[in-house]
Amino acid sequence: MISKSLSKYIQSLHQKKYRQELGAFLVEGAINVLELCASDYQIEVLLVTEPFYKENALLLDKQRVRLEMVSADDLKRVGSLVVNDSALAVVKTKENRFLVADPDEFVLVLDDIRDPGNLGTILRIADWYGIRKLICSLSTADVYNPKVISASKGSFTRVAWYYCDLKTYLAEQAQGPVYGAFLDGASVHSLDFGTAGYIVMGNEANGISVEVEELVSQRITIPRFGEAESLNVGIATAIICDNLRRVETSREGIK
Amino acid sequence: MISKSLSKYIQSLHQKKYRQELGAFLVEGAINVLELCASDYQIEVLLVTEPFYKENALLLDKQRVRLEMVSADDLKRVGSLVVNDSALAVVKTKENRFLVADPDEFVLVLDDIRDPGNLGTILRIADWYGIRKLICSLSTADVYNPKVISASKGSFTRVAWYYCDLKTYLAEQAQGPVYGAFLDGASVHSLDFGTAGYIVMGNEANGISVEVEELVSQRITIPRFGEAESLNVGIATAIICDNLRRVETSREGIK
Repeated sequence: MISKSLSKYIQSLHQKKYRQELGAFLVEGAINVLELCASDYQIEVLLVTEPFYKENALLLDKQRVRLEMVSADDLKRVGSLVVNDSALAVVKTKENRFLVADPDEFVLVLDDIRDPGNLGTILRIADWYGIRKLICSLSTADVYNPKVISASKGSFTRVAWYYCDLKTYLAEQAQGPVYGAFLDGASVHSLDFGTAGYIVMGNEANGISVEVEELVSQRITIPRFGEAESLNVGIATAIICDNLRRVETSREGIK
Repeated sequence: MISKSLSKYIQSLHQKKYRQELGAFLVEGAINVLELCASDYQIEVLLVTEPFYKENALLLDKQRVRLEMVSADDLKRVGSLVVNDSALAVVKTKENRFLVADPDEFVLVLDDIRDPGNLGTILRIADWYGIRKLICSLSTADVYNPKVISASKGSFTRVAWYYCDLKTYLAEQAQGPVYGAFLDGASVHSLDFGTAGYIVMGNEANGISVEVEELVSQRITIPRFGEAESLNVGIATAIICDNLRRVETSREGIK
């Protein structure tokens, strides 16, 4: 049983307003909670079902946090998932810390990515391709939205983000190339991306905004071989990252 | 206003059982309905809002089908979309017609892809990369599910599919290589895919089934550069198709 006050606290964290006010967010499901426990995030409360606790007692006991035994029904009632028979954690958000690309690093820049599912998928892709930093426009979905965290499948613990005004950020901070994904541009199949830079992905419906477009130094595109009008932004991000790393490793002779 | 009987008919088509029994399915939203009108699918009824009709009168009048003027609220009530202020069509399903890869063709094989969103995304990716045929296991999501059709963004009109027992199909029909996506296998960055073959993508949680795995002649994998445990099956399909076409065009010298 979850106390009335805890239940109310957790439910308030479904909303961005309360996440910002209270400085906390929700992590749900087995994979996400296990990855969370292995990270440096600070957990406030951990709600676990008995079977999940039994399977992971060693790891969970090490957390030294308030641990409550609950039912899957409890988790469903207070959480955002349709099914959750394992765990839910209330976790402290991190401060919005300034990030910049190292001289040998690629960083993703998200210009108004609105859909939480897309943002979660992009976190997972960044993590797969070893991209450690996201620069997000202020209009991009809140990374602490439960849908983003769930879709990231634990990758939110290994990727850092910084929300800011992209125009100012790119004008003042970007050293090296700023790549932007457009329907016209150099093919990612033949482009040499170099060893560092910023890769800008645009809004689901409208693409990269005019003011950010002005700061793009190299337009890039994914070649089309059929007739679909466009690709989803998560898919496009994955294909660009894949080509980036392929070119990099082939240059290094690691095949 | 939609009549009670038509409303009931449309709502029944949310369920696979009735789609199969009645041989009809739903196509919703502006993009999907416009692509539908340009295809060879047979439309039974077309429900349109006045603004959508006015914008597309030329194309819609050419359809010579029963056309009903409705409100966005009507569409929302009978359809599956949260918002639909344009159109909904009731369309005849096609028969499950046998398909096989041509001697110079790549075909996608879906082994138990359960999530309708993933299947819709895969249709869109296939269409982008000019892949015209999907072979689907009997346990793969129903392609006529409204969520699949919506996620395909019109690509369902340009890609064909055949549902069958994959083990029998691959054993009897597959000429040339059968590629299978696994976490271990030849890197898609350096593999020469040749000019034709079957590319098998496995279930979201369990990957390719044991019985289909036996028929895979070449295991392939997407190189990982970071720490995420896996990629979503839609993302993986896109990356494999991208590498396939890249290798093909670089062989042809079209860069």
